Amino acid sequence: MQGPVRVLVLGTGSIGSEIARVILNKPGLKLVGAFARRAERGGLDLGTAIGLGRELGITVGNELPELLEEAKPHVAIQATCSTVADAVGEISTLIRRRVHVITIAEEMACPEAGSPEIARELNQLASDHGVSLLGTGVNPGFVLDLLIITLSGVCTDIRHISARRTNDLARYGHSVLKAQGVGLSRAEFQTGIHAGSVVGHIGFRESIHMIASSIGWKIDRIDENRDPIIARVARETPFVTVEPGRVAGCLHTAVGYSGNKSVIELIHPQQVHPHLERIETGDTIRIRGTPDINLHMRPEIPGGLATAALAVNEIPRVLNAEPGLHTMVDLPVPAAILADARVFIKGAARRMA
Amino acid sequence: MQGPVRVLVLGTGSIGSEIARVILNKPGLKLVGAFARRAERGGLDLGTAIGLGRELGITVGNELPELLEEAKPHVAIQATCSTVADAVGEISTLIRRRVHVITIAEEMACPEAGSPEIARELNQLASDHGVSLLGTGVNPGFVLDLLIITLSGVCTDIRHISARRTNDLARYGHSVLKAQGVGLSRAEFQTGIHAGSVVGHIGFRESIHMIASSIGWKIDRIDENRDPIIARVARETPFVTVEPGRVAGCLHTAVGYSGNKSVIELIHPQQVHPHLERIETGDTIRIRGTPDINLHMRPEIPGGLATAALAVNEIPRVLNAEPGLHTMVDLPVPAAILADARVFIKGAARRMA
Repeated sequence: MQGPVRVLVLGTGSIGSEIARVILNKPGLKLVGAFARRAERGGLDLGTAIGLGRELGITVGNELPELLEEAKPHVAIQATCSTVADAVGEISTLIRRRVHVITIAEEMACPEAGSPEIARELNQLASDHGVSLLGTGVNPGFVLDLLIITLSGVCTDIRHISARRTNDLARYGHSVLKAQGVGLSRAEFQTGIHAGSVVGHIGFRESIHMIASSIGWKIDRIDENRDPIIARVARETPFVTVEPGRVAGCLHTAVGYSGNKSVIELIHPQQVHPHLERIETGDTIRIRGTPDINLHMRPEIPGGLATAALAVNEIPRVLNAEPGLHTMVDLPVPAAILADARVFIKGAARRMA
Repeated sequence: MQGPVRVLVLGTGSIGSEIARVILNKPGLKLVGAFARRAERGGLDLGTAIGLGRELGITVGNELPELLEEAKPHVAIQATCSTVADAVGEISTLIRRRVHVITIAEEMACPEAGSPEIARELNQLASDHGVSLLGTGVNPGFVLDLLIITLSGVCTDIRHISARRTNDLARYGHSVLKAQGVGLSRAEFQTGIHAGSVVGHIGFRESIHMIASSIGWKIDRIDENRDPIIARVARETPFVTVEPGRVAGCLHTAVGYSGNKSVIELIHPQQVHPHLERIETGDTIRIRGTPDINLHMRPEIPGGLATAALAVNEIPRVLNAEPGLHTMVDLPVPAAILADARVFIKGAARRMA
């Protein structure tokens, strides 16, 4: 492989922008194009669109097929959406043009969990076109699934798995805050849950499916619960001011049952500025089995940054993989790219002709 | 694949026995034979040899080729030694008879680190015979390499990696205690270091090589240091009594340098009953970069049990892998086997004809 790996980014929002910045700093990777769904982004220079403070000579496009003709990417990173249904159109377009795809759409971390037929179709489509497709991200994709599965590898027996991710939403923008109900009254939060505007975390079903299928457990049902986290002191970010008594975030939990027995419990309180009420952020994993495992990370792995890092760091893994649909569990472990990215690519000639 | 996966165990010492016990409890795996280097083990029933309290109808053999004729294993787990030089004979015999191999010999976690030519030869031999070879274990193979590499995947940049594994040797037997100098005087410890009878931990070179090559760092040299851990109170195990003022264990550190800059620092104090002096056991990983990662596990992942678990849990990964030599970094993440092991084996017909 002579030239750099040509990378296209889909999405110029908060994480899409971060992904673009990471790519720009990685030798061996070349950012060759950017796609945005929002019409008002089309025609902007990408440097302007992502607030880089300089122009990049890359014009953000709204028409994916045209963009692919011009940019000729080897791999695309999708950061435009959360659900399989919303992601599958762009992904199919990319695959049909023989572009490898990494997506951070949460449900795509394990599309088999909620959309098994689409997963089969995407696997077939990618295989037919000789490219690989991977869903990744900090969660789902890493903290509440891949890390748990990896740790399970040192166990001969497991009775129960629980994990808690307590993070800070203070750096997130309107769309994330809205999805978590931040700033609402308690009543508005409940109404939002019923209306579907307050969704909490997307990915529990995917994480539980990945864990269970990796270790061989059958999960009979998953119960999810979303409770408002009520602020006792004012919590303010550039995007929202939460007065005491109003919603600072969403405590979302999911429990996977085998029969009537809880076997996997994932707890994910997301809120702005938890430290203002002396709540420590962090990631905790507890496995009860032989042996017990007790893991803590303080503070938590920061979500946006880690998702951008994973999406870029997985480029060599995706180029090296057999054609088809993959999850983080199917591929070798992720690793930081701290040298020319081409060093990590094997058999590149074959896959990137 | 109709019948169970036929597994042969090499080694009937502490960990070999544990591995045999784990296999006996896993549906889909069948323990079909056991090899021991020690002549006095030959002819014993394996159940007796590993202290199971019942006979298994499996006779421990001292002649590997004969044993392979009789047992016809698909995969063998080697728990007889620590170095590449000492491991390679049995491994070659197994590979030539088309048996997949998992070894817990520490240096085999990454034979490329210290024996690149033998690594190449083993890779070729395994490829030629259509089988896979993997080195694994808790350390090297998991705590101070695989986990660190996995965590690096959420980073866009890393300046320094350090990790500390503080464990308890109280459950280990004579050979491990001797290698760590437990029970010696301070002067005897130093003499033992020079004579090579006190070795401390085996695997730092392998762990540092795995980390560096995974993320793309060039390590120019590794400095290792072994200091005695002097008991201040009496520490007693079934195998040794350490009086105050004598050696309770070995504080072994390894530092990997890029130029003159320390970039990877691994610290591994191993001793009997650290809690008697209020020393907490645990595994700690610190990555300084973007973002910082701070991981703690308390207590530490227990070594013998975790190594046995990993060796058995990797059976499906090894059967699924491309023929050749692998490290834990090349394969998908490990996972506990909590269902019939055959569920996790893909394309078994092809590889296990």
